[in-house]
Amino acid sequence: MRIDPDRDIVLDRLLQAPPHLVWRCWTEPGLFCQWYLPRPWFVSEAIMDLRPGGRFFMVAGGPGGERVSNEGSFLEVVPERKLVFTDLFGEDYAPFEAPDSSFGPNFTAVLTFAPDGTGTRHRAVARHRSAGDAAANREMGFEAGWSVTTDQLERLAVTL
Amino acid sequence: MRIDPDRDIVLDRLLQAPPHLVWRCWTEPGLFCQWYLPRPWFVSEAIMDLRPGGRFFMVAGGPGGERVSNEGSFLEVVPERKLVFTDLFGEDYAPFEAPDSSFGPNFTAVLTFAPDGTGTRHRAVARHRSAGDAAANREMGFEAGWSVTTDQLERLAVTL
Repeated sequence: MRIDPDRDIVLDRLLQAPPHLVWRCWTEPGLFCQWYLPRPWFVSEAIMDLRPGGRFFMVAGGPGGERVSNEGSFLEVVPERKLVFTDLFGEDYAPFEAPDSSFGPNFTAVLTFAPDGTGTRHRAVARHRSAGDAAANREMGFEAGWSVTTDQLERLAVTL
Repeated sequence: MRIDPDRDIVLDRLLQAPPHLVWRCWTEPGLFCQWYLPRPWFVSEAIMDLRPGGRFFMVAGGPGGERVSNEGSFLEVVPERKLVFTDLFGEDYAPFEAPDSSFGPNFTAVLTFAPDGTGTRHRAVARHRSAGDAAANREMGFEAGWSVTTDQLERLAVTL
């Protein structure tokens, strides 16, 4: 995959848990709600229809009682190896007229998981429609937030 | 799949050729160029990287010497059963900042192929971002054009 440094934000990490456990954290709503989003933000509800074109919906809660939802879908699902989701399409590839940007500028996430020793080489690429959208997410602290969130993911995965 | 009558344009046809031949016509560039687009328009070149996230590019020629290209990608590829492509994303799910609408308002096509007797039940759903985009395509003669094009597909498939 060719990375576009202007439009893509890339996180690349070696996690101390094998791919099948990292995969479970990403794809089981009960686990996903325990680690996604940097604390004190959290996910209170997640609906995952884990198939290409399947709905991916979540509700986030914030420290001041904020409640924000995000509607999207999965595009590619390769168990334990690759997961792609977007908030530009709804169920069954129906493109949104007004994509839900409650969480900030829209992006499409391409996640890969590869065995590496007893752990997982995990790469997440957030692909934006424009350099401006990517810059806005960077300014919001996207990279630091995603890194903290991935720490939370790792701490959960190693306990499974 | 839930159809949205305002944003989706649906073609549903029983074709006199089995799914594996209809599939070949859709996915082999040398065959695709023989039937796609309603005559006197034709496809002079097609690049198909037939995988989820793979590039789908074509060049169309018109009766007055027109030359129009279209850049997009495949989203789902289930051999002989389902093919999804879009011009809203480029290779590997990079969303376009300015999707290529040289062919008219953008749409995402969800094609299915099911055995039906000795033939194929073929459904094509063109999903648009808005009712306005779908209406513009209808006014351009999208439905009649797609129907004629599907006749051309059928005539080719039965000879294979």
